[in-house]
Amino acid sequence: MLELQLKKGTLFENVLEASLDLVNEASVDCSSTGFSLQAVDAKRVGMLSVLFPAQVFEHYRCDVDGSMGITIADMVKALRCANDDDIIDIKADDQNNSIALTFHSSKENSTTAFGLRLVDAKSHRLVVPEWQFLDSTYEAIFCMSSVDFMRICKSLSGIDNEVVISVTKEVVKFFACGKRGSLSIVYRQNETLGKTHYDVREPVSLTLDLSCLNSCTRAFALFDQVKIRLSTKLPMMVECKIKEKGYIRYSIAPKILTEVEVEGKTENVEEGTKGNKTMQD
Amino acid sequence: MLELQLKKGTLFENVLEASLDLVNEASVDCSSTGFSLQAVDAKRVGMLSVLFPAQVFEHYRCDVDGSMGITIADMVKALRCANDDDIIDIKADDQNNSIALTFHSSKENSTTAFGLRLVDAKSHRLVVPEWQFLDSTYEAIFCMSSVDFMRICKSLSGIDNEVVISVTKEVVKFFACGKRGSLSIVYRQNETLGKTHYDVREPVSLTLDLSCLNSCTRAFALFDQVKIRLSTKLPMMVECKIKEKGYIRYSIAPKILTEVEVEGKTENVEEGTKGNKTMQD
Amino acid sequence: MLELQLKKGTLFENVLEASLDLVNEASVDCSSTGFSLQAVDAKRVGMLSVLFPAQVFEHYRCDVDGSMGITIADMVKALRCANDDDIIDIKADDQNNSIALTFHSSKENSTTAFGLRLVDAKSHRLVVPEWQFLDSTYEAIFCMSSVDFMRICKSLSGIDNEVVISVTKEVVKFFACGKRGSLSIVYRQNETLGKTHYDVREPVSLTLDLSCLNSCTRAFALFDQVKIRLSTKLPMMVECKIKEKGYIRYSIAPKILTEVEVEGKTENVEEGTKGNKTMQD
Repeated sequence: MLELQLKKGTLFENVLEASLDLVNEASVDCSSTGFSLQAVDAKRVGMLSVLFPAQVFEHYRCDVDGSMGITIADMVKALRCANDDDIIDIKADDQNNSIALTFHSSKENSTTAFGLRLVDAKSHRLVVPEWQFLDSTYEAIFCMSSVDFMRICKSLSGIDNEVVISVTKEVVKFFACGKRGSLSIVYRQNETLGKTHYDVREPVSLTLDLSCLNSCTRAFALFDQVKIRLSTKLPMMVECKIKEKGYIRYSIAPKILTEVEVEGKTENVEEGTKGNKTMQD
Repeated sequence: MLELQLKKGTLFENVLEASLDLVNEASVDCSSTGFSLQAVDAKRVGMLSVLFPAQVFEHYRCDVDGSMGITIADMVKALRCANDDDIIDIKADDQNNSIALTFHSSKENSTTAFGLRLVDAKSHRLVVPEWQFLDSTYEAIFCMSSVDFMRICKSLSGIDNEVVISVTKEVVKFFACGKRGSLSIVYRQNETLGKTHYDVREPVSLTLDLSCLNSCTRAFALFDQVKIRLSTKLPMMVECKIKEKGYIRYSIAPKILTEVEVEGKTENVEEGTKGNKTMQD
Repeated sequence: MLELQLKKGTLFENVLEASLDLVNEASVDCSSTGFSLQAVDAKRVGMLSVLFPAQVFEHYRCDVDGSMGITIADMVKALRCANDDDIIDIKADDQNNSIALTFHSSKENSTTAFGLRLVDAKSHRLVVPEWQFLDSTYEAIFCMSSVDFMRICKSLSGIDNEVVISVTKEVVKFFACGKRGSLSIVYRQNETLGKTHYDVREPVSLTLDLSCLNSCTRAFALFDQVKIRLSTKLPMMVECKIKEKGYIRYSIAPKILTEVEVEGKTENVEEGTKGNKTMQD
């Protein structure tokens, strides 16, 4: 039996709403620690994983650990129907194939009750070994403003549908190159970036799908900073903390370029920026 | 000969604009009492009927009673072209197959004159007997905030395309049930509802088309409160007063459910909300 | 070699952005005087011609006169990626087939560099003789508020896809007539219009394509007033000044009506407005 209580417009609702850009359904696990959610995007390239710790909610009770599949779109549609000052109760129990959302108006004269059908979300449950979340696993780690991260992904997607992210001890570089031009965005490891987190043991360069990155940025923009971890052997990991023990994580598999593609890219890069020498690092 | 004068952004313009959600053409009757408008929606399930009493206008003159068909979309498009401080004159005369809208700019150096063709709107003229507008004709009458009414219809249409409205002496209940879940919204007859109007002689329960209801809510949201009248034998009647003698009324024919549908609905209701017992009344 | 520097949100960016309504590509000429841009619309009915004088830019340097073709959409998309306080450098040189835009963040820790491919824009280079820009060439000249001009064109396009602009010594009249009605907008030559510029030697009446006019109005709305010059023998010329020596000009070829069309129009005019006698001049 799961029982949550929350208020409209809180992190829970906002993260779910922003997640709609990425996924429609999710697998949910509930335990006394919190409410966690996992979903794989339609392209099966990126995976979203969120833990809302119990403290995020006004009230949180979970007697028995459980797992269920929800349609995020329906949850969000339901939550949007709440008034600003409604108290929202969410309940699920084992005998039931539904999750109940009840809004009590503060004026006390109306009650709104949604009963949403649960769905089969087994395909969203991927087991990720814990070491993939350790900083020491990655060659390069940096933090940056989540609004900048959003803006960068959006700008790059005007040029091409993939980005090369390269991190060295000195700079983080985002680069895209398409038919009509190229775009290179360079962040120098100075006070702003360094103050928070900048730890590069080895230079890493990964090519990533921009539409997947763009889809995740709205959820991360709910937080001030994103922490990005890169390795040549693993998916890129983007993360924000939710309270002390919670998190929102998005891991996205890099593109594996064939020899021909790599050559083409390099050539384009040269051509697209040779009129702009100061940008070469 | 009809002559009206109004200012931009007044009720007349706003009601016409909101009516566009419902209907494109309307039949207009003019008399010394006021300007009245009648239109049937595309599905021929709902009927809009508005009386703008003479007092709504800056100036109103109608020598001979008359009737004409107008394209609401064109009227609204024309009215939108007025500047905020323009004086708007509307004229129609019998010899003419057009209605003239003239905007005089307050700066007095420009004049904008529309001549809109009249249309044949006979199909929109339905005669509704006067007793259908008497409170005593209906088993259940209640008033509620028009913004709540709008919000409720919108929420329900996220679940299904029809709603069951049930009124008892204690509560008004809106209920929809679709493939992905159910939604029940219950208003208790307490001070808030009762203060204005709550008069239920017999419980009534009607099934109504939500797309029609949704289309009319924008026009009613221009007023504070809607008055809803229900009978098992008549269309549902939604009404707001305009000044003392005017009104905007929308009557919508209930769906007649076959035996099978009724059983199906009831079953769904049970299933959709059994995880949410407190909502059952 | 061309080198410009500008700030986000300046006239240069705004005019380019508004020009997107009209044209996608443009031919650019650079000289020590300034940056000039010429483009013909898709219908080849209107021509946009802009001169940004050197003073418009924070920094401007052009050693050798040159010409190139740009994709306005790409330039605008790039400029939109700048932050509000970024310094924007634009560079082009002869050996290159690209134009480089570099944004330096004021916080100094990031650099964004676009390299945009140049295109072939020879089809946009039309030579217009200088006398076509002299006031003395035209029979009628008047100035009006550019916001009014925008509003008028928009209102008229709700009625038909062409407008008749008629100028006499007393009034400027815009008239459109379509299947569903007519619209006549009359500006009297009084203080408001006359204060700025109103010089009519001969009455002129031209029929113009409204979609072309509508497309240009957003660019002109960046300025307070438009100057409109009409002649029976030439395209209509709409113009605003940019600083002292710069300008934005849009010239649009009038429609040449056949006898039948002229008759039809006149008839419609009569019919469409006869219920509105005060509008006839």
